Amino acid sequence: MKLRVKLIPVKMDRASAILSQEDAQELGLLVGDRIKLIFGKKSIVADVQIATGMIERGEIGISKNVMDHLEVEEGGEIEVHPVSKPPSVEYIRKKMDGHKLKREEIYSIIADIVNNALNEIELSAFVLSNYFYGMDMDEIEWMTRAMIETGETVKFERGTIVDKHSIGGVPGNKISLLIVPIVAASGLYIPKTASRAITSASGTADTMEVLADVCLSVDEIQEITERVGGVIAWGGATNIAPADDKIIKVEYPLSIDPHSQLLASVMAKKGAIGAQFVVIDIPVGSGTKVPDIDKGRDLANDFVTLGRRLGLNVTCAITYGSQPVGKAVGPALEAREALETLEKGKAPKTLIEKSLGIAGTLLEMAGIAADGMEYARQVLESGKALKKFKEIIEAQGGDPNVSSESVAVGDKTYDFFSPIDGAVSKVDNKVVVKVARAAGAPKDKGAGIVLHKKIGQHVRKGDKLFTIYAEKDWKLDQAIELAMRESPVKVSGMILERYPSYRYY
Amino acid sequence: MKLRVKLIPVKMDRASAILSQEDAQELGLLVGDRIKLIFGKKSIVADVQIATGMIERGEIGISKNVMDHLEVEEGGEIEVHPVSKPPSVEYIRKKMDGHKLKREEIYSIIADIVNNALNEIELSAFVLSNYFYGMDMDEIEWMTRAMIETGETVKFERGTIVDKHSIGGVPGNKISLLIVPIVAASGLYIPKTASRAITSASGTADTMEVLADVCLSVDEIQEITERVGGVIAWGGATNIAPADDKIIKVEYPLSIDPHSQLLASVMAKKGAIGAQFVVIDIPVGSGTKVPDIDKGRDLANDFVTLGRRLGLNVTCAITYGSQPVGKAVGPALEAREALETLEKGKAPKTLIEKSLGIAGTLLEMAGIAADGMEYARQVLESGKALKKFKEIIEAQGGDPNVSSESVAVGDKTYDFFSPIDGAVSKVDNKVVVKVARAAGAPKDKGAGIVLHKKIGQHVRKGDKLFTIYAEKDWKLDQAIELAMRESPVKVSGMILERYPSYRYY
Repeated sequence: MKLRVKLIPVKMDRASAILSQEDAQELGLLVGDRIKLIFGKKSIVADVQIATGMIERGEIGISKNVMDHLEVEEGGEIEVHPVSKPPSVEYIRKKMDGHKLKREEIYSIIADIVNNALNEIELSAFVLSNYFYGMDMDEIEWMTRAMIETGETVKFERGTIVDKHSIGGVPGNKISLLIVPIVAASGLYIPKTASRAITSASGTADTMEVLADVCLSVDEIQEITERVGGVIAWGGATNIAPADDKIIKVEYPLSIDPHSQLLASVMAKKGAIGAQFVVIDIPVGSGTKVPDIDKGRDLANDFVTLGRRLGLNVTCAITYGSQPVGKAVGPALEAREALETLEKGKAPKTLIEKSLGIAGTLLEMAGIAADGMEYARQVLESGKALKKFKEIIEAQGGDPNVSSESVAVGDKTYDFFSPIDGAVSKVDNKVVVKVARAAGAPKDKGAGIVLHKKIGQHVRKGDKLFTIYAEKDWKLDQAIELAMRESPVKVSGMILERYPSYRYY
Repeated sequence: MKLRVKLIPVKMDRASAILSQEDAQELGLLVGDRIKLIFGKKSIVADVQIATGMIERGEIGISKNVMDHLEVEEGGEIEVHPVSKPPSVEYIRKKMDGHKLKREEIYSIIADIVNNALNEIELSAFVLSNYFYGMDMDEIEWMTRAMIETGETVKFERGTIVDKHSIGGVPGNKISLLIVPIVAASGLYIPKTASRAITSASGTADTMEVLADVCLSVDEIQEITERVGGVIAWGGATNIAPADDKIIKVEYPLSIDPHSQLLASVMAKKGAIGAQFVVIDIPVGSGTKVPDIDKGRDLANDFVTLGRRLGLNVTCAITYGSQPVGKAVGPALEAREALETLEKGKAPKTLIEKSLGIAGTLLEMAGIAADGMEYARQVLESGKALKKFKEIIEAQGGDPNVSSESVAVGDKTYDFFSPIDGAVSKVDNKVVVKVARAAGAPKDKGAGIVLHKKIGQHVRKGDKLFTIYAEKDWKLDQAIELAMRESPVKVSGMILERYPSYRYY
């Protein structure tokens, strides 16, 4: 059938074509079916949408990007044919019935995700099937390899490539800003790609962006790493494992992160960047993604197994995650705390012990030191890590003369004080994040929260518990209101013991 | 935040609002989040979409129907607030983890489906969870009741209300056009709502539409039923169990029809129309929805149990479905065959035995006759059923003087002949439907296929096997090509036995 092009001024991820009710019927098409649009030598497969008023019979509504792809103008006549679903939909049906997929089937699904050949319902069905049935290690390995191969990859010519990744869930986790310079200053290459916050108060990429540009290409990541030893870039600016971003778009509205998808997502990024030694940080505890240490160990075991299959040497650090890491939560506040730690060589225990522990593990794995944590502490205390971090900042287009005092944080602040004598019984991760986001984080870089007291610390009535920072008055107000209602820091009159104690792997 | 309205000329089921990247970040919103749009005293909750070029900062793109709802003009300033997901999303999460839902939770989900408060991903997650885990009979009962109560219902003041429903899967199943007049002519009320074809060659509503108007309101259905005893209307024109239509939109692209959904969908329609006695036709066999008789019995048992819980007296007819019912497939061809059967009092065994069997069961259930099938045969052969059908046609705005000879069928035809001596070993339901649809059915009313030989019949080389009917040459050609390739009717040189034999409940 030939139809006349009408421009629809909405851009969509997947190509869609809007037909009149009559033409859709004539072609036997329903919403969810696919058609091939052909103009001259160009063609594209699009989803069928059915108009309810704005498309006349004989017309077809397509967006500017589809028109550009077909090289057709508004009013041009394009040929339209129904086409069948791609075979990957059949494979998704197979997984929906609980069957194990074959290597080629998984590759076909991942390739179609990357090519936008699957619609939202089909993609949801794939992710939900993985959530319901899980995948075995074969399937996870194939999915990881497919995710790597459908995106950009880095091949370093020389050097020992290490990397770290946190599965997230704990606020204030600015440890990469310490680990990357420590490790790079020790002679290793660490081309760290990081994410931005989705539901958290600040992703590592948001925090680093306070100090330098994080939108780097894969070539820039490689070049800077080879020149100064390390980089902290936003993974989203690259085309590394692009299937992952599309899968996350479906996971987010359902608040799920299937085990198989988590493993594949992390390891695909590490594999694509060419890492040889990897530490995975698995925070466990209340308010994180992993409720208890047993679950943490299961996950750790799977990461190690998957790593071995992919030729990556993986160690997992199961870390204490029941309260924020360090004191600061929010992009600029965290960048400031990280810089201050590098400047002074010391920091709150939750931050410094965790950072040195993970950096040390990488140093041990790569054969740099027998007592990696001690080695890392010396690199930090000697000022070499600070010097390296400034080199990295400069290489990423930031100001190498930056100091913790020069980092701009929100100028609207509000302090909360303890109403009683007692001790801090809880710092609620989820409430801390909500308050920081209400204050404007991660969008407003200077917004966030600084904790003055943490779990187990004694407080007297009137002691300062935490401070909210914001860039805008109305956001400060909404954060204060939320903090009043939900108390991120809870003080009890008596605590029986300090539990759990801080513990690292 | 206040944003300026910009018209987006696309209409969507769910209200969507398109924000610039910057404003979405400012509000901390991602695709899949929800916002409340407020203008004066009017408000509406919409899905967040993020623009990639066409919406400036400070603008918000909404469609005409959302503008009309808010009573705002293009350029008007509306207030925008993030809002949380409705509680039903939490309940869907609960089902995703395999937990049994409570009555209120199911009611909340169904109500939100009807109000378009769930997006496609959430709705898919609900349907897929039911597919994966199933529902127990409590949940199915609550879902059925919720589907009834969220739509229109009919209350008859007097009379015995009966109904029938086929779960589908077998082509040529025009039995309602015989059963409704037979039952109505016997003094019962049968307010039959029927569906249009989704993937089949003709739904009962498509077939009836050849003879009369099927777009009737609930009031018209009630009025005509009380006046002439029966009606055959398109359910989609009413607001009976509207949740069902929205659920089907998600099931279709995934080619699934979860057991729980099938039960609730059928029984909600029967419950809403006020039926007291119901027969459910469950075709089993190759190419239908139910592969074997054991599965058919399980389903039958669940229909009867659910009926009892809802106060409906249900009998199931497990019917032979391994080949089409009767000879004709396609709207006009089926209408013609049904009329001819009413005129002559006879028809192919698969059609007449099935129709009389089901009509007879209804007559027995309602206490009209001890041998219902024999009673039904007399009503048919006496001509009373034909007379009643013409009354129904007239009541629905059709021509009461219609006859089987006056029904217009496609004037482009093509005959297929047997290439060998032998017997028909298979009439493939799925291929028959594909060929009829390729010929134009159900859109082109006159298109379809007529079978001259059916399973077990002996044929000689050169005997006519089937004829394709079409209204357009190009569709006839594509149907011929398909039939050449996939052979809807298979002739073998030898068959060992006639199996399965025709069998009804």
